[in-house]
Parts: sequence; C-alpha cells; structure tokens
Amino acid sequence: MNDFTFYSPTKFIFGREAIDAVGGELSRRSLRKALIVYGGASAVRSGVLARVKASLDANGVAHEEMGGVRPNPELNEVRAGIALLRASGCDCLLPVGGGSVIDCAKAIAFGAGYDGDVWDFFDGKAKITGCLPIAVVLTLPAAGSEGSASCVISNDAISAKRGVGADSMRPTIAFMDPETTFTLPPYQTASGVTDMIAHICERYFSGQGAAAVTDAIATSLIRTLIASAPKALVDPKDYEARAAIMWAGTLAHNDLAGCGLASSAKTRAGGWESHALEHELSAIDPKITHGAGLAVVMPAWMRYVVDADSARFAAFGREVFGIVPADASQEAIKAAASETIDRLQAFFVSMGMPRSLKEFGLEESVIDRLLDGLEKSKGRVFGAFKPLGREDARAIYEIAFKN
Amino acid sequence: MNDFTFYSPTKFIFGREAIDAVGGELSRRSLRKALIVYGGASAVRSGVLARVKASLDANGVAHEEMGGVRPNPELNEVRAGIALLRASGCDCLLPVGGGSVIDCAKAIAFGAGYDGDVWDFFDGKAKITGCLPIAVVLTLPAAGSEGSASCVISNDAISAKRGVGADSMRPTIAFMDPETTFTLPPYQTASGVTDMIAHICERYFSGQGAAAVTDAIATSLIRTLIASAPKALVDPKDYEARAAIMWAGTLAHNDLAGCGLASSAKTRAGGWESHALEHELSAIDPKITHGAGLAVVMPAWMRYVVDADSARFAAFGREVFGIVPADASQEAIKAAASETIDRLQAFFVSMGMPRSLKEFGLEESVIDRLLDGLEKSKGRVFGAFKPLGREDARAIYEIAFKN
Repeated sequence: MNDFTFYSPTKFIFGREAIDAVGGELSRRSLRKALIVYGGASAVRSGVLARVKASLDANGVAHEEMGGVRPNPELNEVRAGIALLRASGCDCLLPVGGGSVIDCAKAIAFGAGYDGDVWDFFDGKAKITGCLPIAVVLTLPAAGSEGSASCVISNDAISAKRGVGADSMRPTIAFMDPETTFTLPPYQTASGVTDMIAHICERYFSGQGAAAVTDAIATSLIRTLIASAPKALVDPKDYEARAAIMWAGTLAHNDLAGCGLASSAKTRAGGWESHALEHELSAIDPKITHGAGLAVVMPAWMRYVVDADSARFAAFGREVFGIVPADASQEAIKAAASETIDRLQAFFVSMGMPRSLKEFGLEESVIDRLLDGLEKSKGRVFGAFKPLGREDARAIYEIAFKN
Repeated sequence: MNDFTFYSPTKFIFGREAIDAVGGELSRRSLRKALIVYGGASAVRSGVLARVKASLDANGVAHEEMGGVRPNPELNEVRAGIALLRASGCDCLLPVGGGSVIDCAKAIAFGAGYDGDVWDFFDGKAKITGCLPIAVVLTLPAAGSEGSASCVISNDAISAKRGVGADSMRPTIAFMDPETTFTLPPYQTASGVTDMIAHICERYFSGQGAAAVTDAIATSLIRTLIASAPKALVDPKDYEARAAIMWAGTLAHNDLAGCGLASSAKTRAGGWESHALEHELSAIDPKITHGAGLAVVMPAWMRYVVDADSARFAAFGREVFGIVPADASQEAIKAAASETIDRLQAFFVSMGMPRSLKEFGLEESVIDRLLDGLEKSKGRVFGAFKPLGREDARAIYEIAFKN
C-alpha cells in the first residue's frame, strides 16, 4: 500500500428531505446570497429549482441565477458567471444539476477571487489558492463532482478540455435526493453509471499494485453499480436502485476508492488514461456525453494495456464478475483478464452505451486531431498503468473504432 | 435505504512518513501549542513521542504533555487535563495512542471551554457546542476514534462508562503510520480487530433493513479484516496487513459503514447493543479490554436476537464467509444465520480472544450489578435490532457466561 492523504470534508445530506434542508444549511453558515447555477429546463420542469428557492426564501438567503449551462461547460460560461457573481454580490455557489453544472460553479468559485482570466488556472499559469463555498444540489449522479477536488472546463476557441484540482474546491455541502433522478432518461442514467465505474477503474488500474481495503471497497462499489443499474433502467422510480447509484457515484470519486493506490500522497491515484483519451472526443464534439465516450474508450485502453499486468485485471474480474481462472498458469490469467474486459464492455453495451466510436458519427480520419489535442493536454507521454506515447494512443483510438 | 447525513471532515495522512508531518500540519493551521496526551511507556519506548516532538520543534509549535492515561480513561484524568490545558495555554490537543488516549483528549477539548464540570456532558446536563482542534497520532488501531464523532469516558466513583457524540469533536487531522503498530502485542491487535468488526456489525444489524452500497462496503471491510488479522498475528511487521487493519479501523467507525442504515439523519446507525452490554463490563473492571469484552458479548447478543431477522444474518454470512443456505426455506436461512454467528465467534477465538465471560475471572453473580449499570446508562429498554429490557439483557449475559 502506498502512502496517501484522504480528505473529503463535504457534508453529504442524503435522502427524500435533502433539498428542503438547503436554506437552513446555508443560513447556518452565515451565507447570505447564493448564485444558483443550472443547466437545461429539466431543473425547472422537475420542480427542483422551485423547491431550492423556496427553501432559500424561507431561511432568508437571497439568490441570483444563471441557467443554460451546457454539458461540457465552456470557458465563456464561467467568465459570464464570474461577472454575474461579482455584480450581484453573491457569497456562495449553488449548482443544481450534475457534473457540468457543478464544475462550472467550481470554476466560478475559484475564479471569482482572481484578477486574471480564469483559464490561467487550466493553462498552468496560476494556482488555485482560495475558493468560495459551494453547496451542491445533485440531480444527475455521474461525475462525482459533488465530493471531488477537481473541475473540468472546455475551451472551444482552442478545442481543449482541461481539468484542475485543489482540495479547496471540494463542496462544503451536497444535497442528494434520489427521487430527483427518477426522471433521468436511460441514456443519461447509463452514461452516469459508466462514468462512475470509470472513476473507480482509473484508480484501481493505477499501476501501483494492490491496497487490500481500497481494492475491496472499489470492487464492491462496482458490483453494486452493476446490480443496481439494470433495476433503475427497468423501473426509473426504483428508489433503492437510484439511491445506490447516487451514493456509489460520490464514493467512486471522492478519492476513497484510490487510498493507497497513488504513487505519492500528493497525487490522485491512477493515470486517468481513459479520461484523457475521452476528453479529446468531447473537446471535438461537445455533444458526446462523457460517460458514453468512456464506455467506448476505456475497454479499448484496457485491451491495449492489459498485458502490462494481466494479474491485476484477473483480480478485478474475480471480485467483480466472479471469473475464476482455469488454473494458475500465465495463459489462464491472461484469459481471465481478457474475459474481464469483455464482460465490462458487455455490461456497458447492455445499458445502451455505444461499443464503437463510429456510433458517434466519427470517422477514423479524426484520430490525428485527437492526438494533437491529447499531446497538448497530456504531453508526449502519459499514463501510469503503462506509459503511452502518441502511437500508443493512436492504436487505442483505432481499437475504439474497430470495436 | 434510510435518509442519512455523512460528514467525515478529518484529513487522514497515512503512511511511512505520516508522523513527520505533524509539526508542519499544525503550524499551517496557526496552532501554537499542543497538549500531547499519551498512555503508557510504549509511546516513549517506541520513539514515536520523540518523533512527534521533533516534528513540533522543527516547526515552532510548542508543547505540553500529559502521560499515563489509562485504558478506559477516567473522569479525573480528563479534569486534570482540562486544568493543565488552561494553565499551559495550549490551543489544541495532540493525542498519541489509541481510542482511550484520543477519547481523553476529546473530552479535554470540549470540556476546556465549559465552565461547569465536564461530566455534565455525559450526564445529559450540558450539550457540546464547541471543541478545540484535535490532531491524532494513531498507534493503536481499534476504536476508530481518530475519525469518529464520539467519546467514551469512565466515572469510577459511580461505576459508569458513558459516551457522547458531536461532529465538532471529529479530529481535524489524523496521522497514521502502520509501522508504529508493528510492536503491538497479539492481544491488543486482536482486541482492536474485534472492536472494528463490532463497529461495523452494530451498524449492519441496525434493524433498519439493507442499504446496497453500505452493506457492500461493510462486508468488504470485514472480509479484509478477517484476511489481514491472521497475517499480522503471524508476522507483526507485515506492513500490508498492518496498513489494511489500520485503515479498515478508521472506515469502520467514521460512519461510512452506516450510511442509509440509520433510523434518522440525526442518529448514528444501529442500536449499539453490544457496546452498551460491554461498557458495563469495563465499568466494573477497567482491566477488561474493550475489544475482548466485545468478542464475548457480541456473539451472545447475536444468538439472543438472531430470530428477529435471520435473513439479515444470513445475508451477512453469505458476503463475509461465503455461507450459502441449503435452500430458500426458513429453516435453511436460520441454519445459515446460526452458522454465521458460529463462524464469527470462531474467528475471534482464533485470534486469541476469550469465548466466555468466565475467562475474565467474573462470576455470574455479577450480572445484577451489570444490569443496574445498564439501566442507568441506557434506560429500561434499549436496542434497535430488537428492543431489550432488563430480562433480555440478563439472558444475553447468561449466554456470555455459558459460551
């Protein structure tokens, strides 16, 4: 087990009454005016936004709002949010939605106190030193941003999608009512579950060996997701299934599932190869849902790197799918590892996720553009499980097209 | 799944370099003088205390110290600590040890700002409203106090052992180096592991039904403990085993293993019946190690209550021990539940834990005294899995003698 630091200070208020607690919790922290950030019309239609505002009003917390944040939130939305926050005198952020909305709010929260342009943080020109308090109302479980120390923003002008991290951006509170996810369409539900599994896998396959407690938690979270997702897809109002997915999504990404796998106490566990490969897809086409992109790219990455440590994949397959190698031979371990990847991809496909990049309407000719972007964000060589250069990444994208 | 609030803001610094980070972390928080609290000579002999002080000195953090805190810390030690803290002008607590030392420090930390007697908090006469910062150097993994919101103190004058809880007493930081546990004697190691398993079981058998994610985490933690403890007992310097035990002990009691099992967002999950029954033992004889008492009392409690929900015990046995009922009949479920309890007790005994209260030198005639104390701390009826009155508790103690 490697040394690690685990720090997840967010207060999670979970259950059927969670949203009505918003105003009271903000008021108790002496917060006076919240900038509500949300995405499409569903926050309005579902009545969640109205409940949030009613709770704020009842507790004397003023509010301003910024709607229409798109999936894969864009730099200009963040800039507009910072301007609105400053003009309106809000002292905290209140994103209502999923990862895109939360990440937009996070960037506003740490950008608001900075004199330069907020992209400086993503470009490595500035370091995050402070952040306004963030209270999250989660309605789209997927990205785990409600408990995470990270934030991903797209910059369309340069076709880039970049992430930054700092403990100070971990939300102060997250309000999580599984009932608000009853109306999530199947594709969003499946994309979310895929993203959660990817968050766990990125850490599990860190190339840093095993960590008994963390490995046990990681695989138990994935088993629970694999058991719960089909139930939520069959019956979108299955509270237990929705609750399990929602809570697993938080624990998949608040770093609990990486403790002891990191190469150092300072670094998040894992090489985040699949996320890097996927970010280039949605940088090129923001309509590609992050989880759906991962459903294609991650199995392709796994197939390309599995030989670097097939025993690790076999251990994963044993815990998650009950795959028992025929014997202790290297061949049997390799076969079990390969079956593990097949089973994981089959699970994604069974939820309605794509199998090949072709299904996004992309053609193989796009690969060079993807590789250019990848090199800009990750450098010439990246990855922890197995170092990947440009030609390795090309091979992975090719597998993702052939799938 | 029941509604819950999960809040575990402690920063856990885990690994071989953890202790050398003490001074820097305190200094970064502008803490100027720490009251070091420790127990026996082992903190001195092991060199841990010297390393802690060197780290404080190197970072300009002054310190005062209070040694000799006994297992099952006593009210008068807390009172003395409060007086010392006030006289020396310390602004934070730095317990070095296990649950007893940490709990003593916690009581000093929330008692220091209170004008009345600190026992008022345990007696229900006062409510905890504030607490000095607590930084823990954990060297005896067992009680999980390094991440918990609770504190247990004995009052010898009235033969009582009482607990209180409040989020404000959760430690700010915990420094955890598994190497500091290499010198733990087998009995302490086994008692610690038993306590951890009990912390998970008290929540799992909450009488509040299942919660998929939490149940999966809970049983995976216990499986890891059952796999790791024998390794640490055979080779006390097995780093991976010691690390797994240490981290599992924290997660067993920072409330992660209870999310969604509580009857309300305000209450810790579970009825804590075994802890209540055990506290009376160590109130009568402080030499009884908490974990060893639990190793006897918890299986006795389980045998007495199992029929209230044998399916829950069978589900536990399937996940933890791989016990598969012969068929779906009620008899088969009952048999699996019973085998589950047998296997758990056999595991405790295999680690060197006692099987019967007789092994503590107690006689059955003590039961009425235990029941008197129990009624004083828990009232006439207590428990969540199955309500227990005085005669129920008597029957459980009798089983614990007959075992």
